[in-house]
Amino acid sequence: MKRAIEFLRRNILSSEIPVAAIVVKDGQVISAACNRKEAENDVTSHAEILAIREAAQKLGRWRLEDCEIYVTLEPCPMCAWAILQSRLKTVYFGSYDLKYGAFGSVIDLRNFSDTKLKVYGGICEKECDEILKEFFARLR
Amino acid sequence: MKRAIEFLRRNILSSEIPVAAIVVKDGQVISAACNRKEAENDVTSHAEILAIREAAQKLGRWRLEDCEIYVTLEPCPMCAWAILQSRLKTVYFGSYDLKYGAFGSVIDLRNFSDTKLKVYGGICEKECDEILKEFFARLR
Repeated sequence: MKRAIEFLRRNILSSEIPVAAIVVKDGQVISAACNRKEAENDVTSHAEILAIREAAQKLGRWRLEDCEIYVTLEPCPMCAWAILQSRLKTVYFGSYDLKYGAFGSVIDLRNFSDTKLKVYGGICEKECDEILKEFFARLR
Repeated sequence: MKRAIEFLRRNILSSEIPVAAIVVKDGQVISAACNRKEAENDVTSHAEILAIREAAQKLGRWRLEDCEIYVTLEPCPMCAWAILQSRLKTVYFGSYDLKYGAFGSVIDLRNFSDTKLKVYGGICEKECDEILKEFFARLR
């Protein structure tokens, strides 16, 4: 998670909600992305989606059962379902999203899937919360 | 919906679950896509996601509040949330998806969003069901 936070701090764009995701295989980072919805005019350009797509392209397969994803904010339903579909082994997330979090905070989409995804929330939570707070404070 | 079905029939790939989506603005089709998950090794390459991304690129904005989407199968949670995020005005879908449908069949993700999306299911249902049935019969 420290590497996801580092990546996020290096790539923060003032117009985007600051979220980063990295996909890891055998301890190696194989993809990393930040939220780019505004930059790309694309509601699907969330960090998780971009990182999953990049990892799949690099590995030449959509099944990522030997990979794990680290994300600084609890995934929304779109990203949670993409994670479930990609067969990722484990999700580690930082901040809880009490408005749209789809791994337990608002809904848990694992209940609608046959996969055995493991999910751990609140990893480096304080640091991830801090980055989001700074962003929303600047907006006001 | 007839145009989505026509597009689907013209673009059917033997390896993909046959689903098509089109985005329409003022009665004009501005984007059309089929499911391309296997072809692109990308779990996010569902018809709806591809059609939404293409429409947003063409219009130069991610807000599609003046557009509607037609899709031959009820969207999964990933696509349903992408549709909600893109502010599309209306969804028309064909077949109901009793396993993963996220606009009422298994779950209704509108309950977790502030947007006022209108959803109409079962449009040309028989024809959409037929195409899916043919695909799954060929698989066996």
